[in-house]
Amino acid sequence: MREVLLWLLECPSVTGAEQRLCDELEARLRRLPGWEVHRTGDNLAVRRKSPDPSRPTIAFAGHLDTVPEPEGGLPVRIEGELVYGRGASDMKAGDAVMLELLERFDWEGSWAEPVFVFYAGEEGDYEENGLEDVFRELPWVLEADLAFCPEPTENRLELGCVGTSQVEITFRGKAAHAARPWLGENALTKAGELLSELHELRPLEVAVDGLTFREVLTPTMARGGTAKNVVPDAFRINVNYRFAPGKDRRDVERTFKELLRGRAEFEITDFAPSGPVNLNNPLLERFIETVSPEVQPKQAWTDVARFAARGVAAVNFGPGIPDQAHRREEHVRLPLLEECYGKLARYLGDSRRAA
Amino acid sequence: MREVLLWLLECPSVTGAEQRLCDELEARLRRLPGWEVHRTGDNLAVRRKSPDPSRPTIAFAGHLDTVPEPEGGLPVRIEGELVYGRGASDMKAGDAVMLELLERFDWEGSWAEPVFVFYAGEEGDYEENGLEDVFRELPWVLEADLAFCPEPTENRLELGCVGTSQVEITFRGKAAHAARPWLGENALTKAGELLSELHELRPLEVAVDGLTFREVLTPTMARGGTAKNVVPDAFRINVNYRFAPGKDRRDVERTFKELLRGRAEFEITDFAPSGPVNLNNPLLERFIETVSPEVQPKQAWTDVARFAARGVAAVNFGPGIPDQAHRREEHVRLPLLEECYGKLARYLGDSRRAA
Repeated sequence: MREVLLWLLECPSVTGAEQRLCDELEARLRRLPGWEVHRTGDNLAVRRKSPDPSRPTIAFAGHLDTVPEPEGGLPVRIEGELVYGRGASDMKAGDAVMLELLERFDWEGSWAEPVFVFYAGEEGDYEENGLEDVFRELPWVLEADLAFCPEPTENRLELGCVGTSQVEITFRGKAAHAARPWLGENALTKAGELLSELHELRPLEVAVDGLTFREVLTPTMARGGTAKNVVPDAFRINVNYRFAPGKDRRDVERTFKELLRGRAEFEITDFAPSGPVNLNNPLLERFIETVSPEVQPKQAWTDVARFAARGVAAVNFGPGIPDQAHRREEHVRLPLLEECYGKLARYLGDSRRAA
Repeated sequence: MREVLLWLLECPSVTGAEQRLCDELEARLRRLPGWEVHRTGDNLAVRRKSPDPSRPTIAFAGHLDTVPEPEGGLPVRIEGELVYGRGASDMKAGDAVMLELLERFDWEGSWAEPVFVFYAGEEGDYEENGLEDVFRELPWVLEADLAFCPEPTENRLELGCVGTSQVEITFRGKAAHAARPWLGENALTKAGELLSELHELRPLEVAVDGLTFREVLTPTMARGGTAKNVVPDAFRINVNYRFAPGKDRRDVERTFKELLRGRAEFEITDFAPSGPVNLNNPLLERFIETVSPEVQPKQAWTDVARFAARGVAAVNFGPGIPDQAHRREEHVRLPLLEECYGKLARYLGDSRRAA
């Protein structure tokens, strides 16, 4: 497992520059007998050459790309049981477990039919995510009965995912010379009341299928004004709204209408749907029974929501350490990879047949 | 007077491109017998070749530059008694009256010794104002006993001028991922309370020598945040503070300390002093008695404060229409130029000697 992880880490794959890693991985996979390798862009989807149609299908989807290295670099190195490198936790550790399952696991003896997706562009813009290319070009991936996204969860099963929306709020005023501000209307100070309200706002806890998600409204960026001596006629605030599973775009609109009460305009500039909890999925029930009785809500947005939007139940379960994602000294603990592999192998090799 | 104004308007002189107008004006002035023309940069200072040292000196200072023409241009044209063109009111009308006084007025018969300054760079940065070059290179200009700045006042005598300061306020927070904002501290929402307070603030009326100035605190620009999914760790607001004559930099500091009460940091990024009212200046008293019994406070900042900072009493009195300054269809009324010239001629030609 250590070698697989190091092999992945040694080949940089910052978002937009995944081609080399994808090439090397493709070559490696094509050398394996019994597997069918499909490529679209810098994304790979892999299934067995002779799948057993009677088995339920389990998909694993891991992104190959990482955020850039920090200034000064982040050399790949081992210190005891820690492995350092960009992507060590987010999420080449997960990719390594997937590759190990692909190369070493005895799929003949499993009850499940596997599909592996390695894709590009997860850390970049919402629209440029390689998983969407896979869904479009290789739609058989969407026939899976359950998908695992081995994003860093430190081997905890995280269910659902909050949706996230970017909303631009615009306060309007009337320009005037700053020597005579009473002739204008200050769009910036008009926003004071709303900002004060948001300052007092606490996360709203929402229970979904027994899991507690936290809904938050966070102003993240703001800009206004045209010159230092002019009363600003517009002030714009970007608010990031994270909402619980079960809510959709209309709920976002309603939330902002109620929040603003006509005091400002708003526009939803970005919307990523929430992902359902899927506790009623029999293959997920089986995973919970077999290896992971504890479940947690996913407070961040991940690509499980993309699967959900296409009707595929998906969960987050991976060996990376969440706090290490994007860190200057990003690392992962090797025993977490072993544990992750062990749990998945136990699940997939369980003698019972899926319901 | 109309020809003089048209002559000035026909030669564009946007800030930074005053050279051609300055060249043409210099050539015109050098053709006049009896006058001494001094040039530094694109600034001119003119005095009589044989001044009478027993007379008090009156300076006139008019800027040659204008703001740029609006999109689509602003052709020079006459419509009845209106003259259109960039700078018509701000302040080539004032320059025209100065030029008329220089070329036509009978200075031999006056009680006053005149100095005329035509300068560049008034509409640009505070630091690049040509008047400062004149003060440095031709310091005899500062021997004036009273200076008139014929900025647009529609022939009203405007005394003093408010000071103006730009102050950058910085709220500090702690960055965190917007999915877990409770791990950070939002610098943007922290500013809500202050913005609400400033929204309620009314101009503070301050009486100086019987004139009422309005002190105002106007947030004009704001920016904050580094990414749409990150709790902002800093939020900056530029506040333009206009303060009454008599206050200085220490007063600005005190005002912001009291306003912020430790809630945010602040830095004075620009400071232009206020200008005193000078009601006790005998030459000004004489002007008030002779031609302008009504006086008004100057709510905007003008170069009278530069004279004041060098110990020269200065006032605003000019034929331009204040509301026309920088307007898309900037114009001036010709009778205002005649009236302005008439009032100044009456003042300067008055048979009494100055006190």
